[in-house]
Amino acid sequence: MTDFPFTFDLLFPQGLPSRVDNHIQRRLSALRGQFLDQHAYQAMLDVEDCLLYEVYEIRRPELPGEMLMGISVVHPGKVGREFFMTKGHYHAVLDTCEVYTCLKGEGVMVMETPEGETAVEKLSPGKVLYVPPRWAHRSVCTGRAEDLVTFFVYPAHSGHDYGTIEQRGFRKRVLDGPKGVEIVDNDG
Amino acid sequence: MTDFPFTFDLLFPQGLPSRVDNHIQRRLSALRGQFLDQHAYQAMLDVEDCLLYEVYEIRRPELPGEMLMGISVVHPGKVGREFFMTKGHYHAVLDTCEVYTCLKGEGVMVMETPEGETAVEKLSPGKVLYVPPRWAHRSVCTGRAEDLVTFFVYPAHSGHDYGTIEQRGFRKRVLDGPKGVEIVDNDG
Repeated sequence: MTDFPFTFDLLFPQGLPSRVDNHIQRRLSALRGQFLDQHAYQAMLDVEDCLLYEVYEIRRPELPGEMLMGISVVHPGKVGREFFMTKGHYHAVLDTCEVYTCLKGEGVMVMETPEGETAVEKLSPGKVLYVPPRWAHRSVCTGRAEDLVTFFVYPAHSGHDYGTIEQRGFRKRVLDGPKGVEIVDNDG
Repeated sequence: MTDFPFTFDLLFPQGLPSRVDNHIQRRLSALRGQFLDQHAYQAMLDVEDCLLYEVYEIRRPELPGEMLMGISVVHPGKVGREFFMTKGHYHAVLDTCEVYTCLKGEGVMVMETPEGETAVEKLSPGKVLYVPPRWAHRSVCTGRAEDLVTFFVYPAHSGHDYGTIEQRGFRKRVLDGPKGVEIVDNDG
């Protein structure tokens, strides 16, 4: 970990970073209980524990004046009618924001507050999304064949709370419907 | 100011944002005393107080969990042999960082710490620069005809200290030399 300035490249056409300190791969088994169609989930898992998304992290000290950066890659695919998505999380320090810049692909960010407010924003290349403090967030790839690639930046002291979403899920789901992408209530 | 998530577009080919809360224009007269060649400076100013750079800011509450974003556009040009540049600054809260993503053009970031460490990093499209806490920073456009356009993000409680650089200048200057871009000591 250097305290000198440093650079890295967002390498197109893939959008992957030229420098990576940590590479996370999340497979189907990591999202048990999160998809609506449990039968389709188990049938897929019986065939292969396929890769849903990857995160390439740049490490920095986890202090308030630092920021953490990385690239998120959500692969295309569905479990039943539901698009591949990240686990999603609140920040452990709830009053911290996050900025996403979409580099490639098509998708949405599903967001909600502890008080039950919800928001869904579309992502496409060149779009910047500000997720204010207090908003849990989950990336969803709605492309048919292309990865959703985003560059994220957030305060380094934010931390992660995955447990709340693992227990309750998000209030909205993103499905592939006859007329395209459908945002529906999560009644489960 | 909304606390709901929001998006904006980085509109290419210019790289300008589709949403702007504040537009700053800095002209030659705002950098009095900063350029090496004072004669060339005065001669240019006598003709026109030309535009050196512009900043498009997105506003957020200036709290530690928030981040401020914007687009910086440094125009091409020189004062004598010295390329157009921003005023440059420390953050008032010294222990705060900044992330720059270059969207367009060619340039360098000139950086230094209060202890006298210096760093100069090249910027070109797709390059991400991490300016760690404690590093003053100045953008310099080294392109002949094209703007240097960067997208910046920094902790919202950082504040700005312009005075230190206004008084002392940076320890390095960026000049147009016979073999291209020259980084030289500021002996002034």
